[in-house]
Amino acid sequence: MKEKVKYTVITGASSGIGYETANAFAKRGKNLVIVARSRENLEKLKMEILHDNPSLDVIVKSVDLSIIPNVHQLYQELKQYCIETLINNAGFGNYSSVANQNLEKVETMLRLDIEALVVLSSLFVHDYQNIEGSQLINISSCGGYIIVPNAITYCASKFFVSTFTEGLARELQACNAKLQAKVLAPAATKTNFGNVANNIEGYDYDKSFGAYHTSKQMADFLLKLYDSNEVVGLVNRETFEFELSSSLFDYAENSKHNQK
Amino acid sequence: MKEKVKYTVITGASSGIGYETANAFAKRGKNLVIVARSRENLEKLKMEILHDNPSLDVIVKSVDLSIIPNVHQLYQELKQYCIETLINNAGFGNYSSVANQNLEKVETMLRLDIEALVVLSSLFVHDYQNIEGSQLINISSCGGYIIVPNAITYCASKFFVSTFTEGLARELQACNAKLQAKVLAPAATKTNFGNVANNIEGYDYDKSFGAYHTSKQMADFLLKLYDSNEVVGLVNRETFEFELSSSLFDYAENSKHNQK
Repeated sequence: MKEKVKYTVITGASSGIGYETANAFAKRGKNLVIVARSRENLEKLKMEILHDNPSLDVIVKSVDLSIIPNVHQLYQELKQYCIETLINNAGFGNYSSVANQNLEKVETMLRLDIEALVVLSSLFVHDYQNIEGSQLINISSCGGYIIVPNAITYCASKFFVSTFTEGLARELQACNAKLQAKVLAPAATKTNFGNVANNIEGYDYDKSFGAYHTSKQMADFLLKLYDSNEVVGLVNRETFEFELSSSLFDYAENSKHNQK
Repeated sequence: MKEKVKYTVITGASSGIGYETANAFAKRGKNLVIVARSRENLEKLKMEILHDNPSLDVIVKSVDLSIIPNVHQLYQELKQYCIETLINNAGFGNYSSVANQNLEKVETMLRLDIEALVVLSSLFVHDYQNIEGSQLINISSCGGYIIVPNAITYCASKFFVSTFTEGLARELQACNAKLQAKVLAPAATKTNFGNVANNIEGYDYDKSFGAYHTSKQMADFLLKLYDSNEVVGLVNRETFEFELSSSLFDYAENSKHNQK
């Protein structure tokens, strides 16, 4: 009997870390569902992938995940596929003081970086928690482990992602689930992030950061996390080394809070 | 010249910690804006407060803050008042595994506990950051400092509140702002929280927790935080002692991230 065809789902795949992650999983022979707003960029990525890997199946989903009903709709459409790995990579940041931040942008950021990630994670875990080999990888930031000035609300949203994913990993381990939940925490990575977070074009990573990684390097780190049995893959802000580890946040074992 | 009349704004004032906090600030002679969904409960609270403190002005705002346009509308209505203190207390929790959580409830929780709090905090800080004596107090949880089993998504939302508020406090200190931002982190407190988080009536705090505080005790702790110059007021989960301290999360001083 032929093994069921499996897919790796990557959100925010139209550029940056998501784009290079799609390429990296394609090189591993993984069929893909690539998700982003820009259908044009996704179709271009699909053509590139199929050029090098003509036997793969690449599904394009053009959708704005900052609109939560779209997130539910996307997952309904994914029900026909067997998902091996879900990578919640879609997200953006914002550099501003809290006092002066653009609330329309911030509200969109909170819906995309937090709410959409929770919805997709929860639905995926519900359906796949007992499927051997399934993985959920959520993209946080080293700003989800240390608060960075002028990016307070963004960092708080990434602390959400880090603690949600670490807590979920503990919850899954506690019930001997097969699904592994993991969190990737990049430091500065040269992508479209700087432009969006600063509301400019041509953000200069060389001027702004002493060091940064490329998207390709981050996709390699993501694969290292994927291949490991660790929960956290974090770029050290000081050394820029990539470090795999178990959960970093405090967790209350044997809490009475979980009893009704 | 008569000093301008000032108000303490308390969200989630219809019961629990918010209700007792309203009473406690009334005893201090503070005029109030009390906010919650239930107009009936707020009118009752207003009658009680005015019975004991007939000279106070108590404004009732009946509004569902889990609907974000309502949050902006509320703040517009508050523009006519001089706000001395804003206490973001509205919020609820949820006990469930991530795999089985009710996403409609969780989405409402994320909008109320995170998004509404960010919107009100940002608008208030924008307008009052340079006003002497102004304070923002956000209600987190000790689950916003340690992840608690079976409450992963709720804890992640409270980590958001803790890191957002601590980061904001650092940001305000760095620019010598007059406004103080503070975070209160209760442990188990006997309120309506247990019913809502468990989707039941008659949640038994004695059965569920080895120890808990009453809402009145938490309102007293909140006043201690209000009277102090510290940023964090945290109930120790082990000792149930209330501890005032400076920020607890790591903060990246001299970050290059804040340069464009």
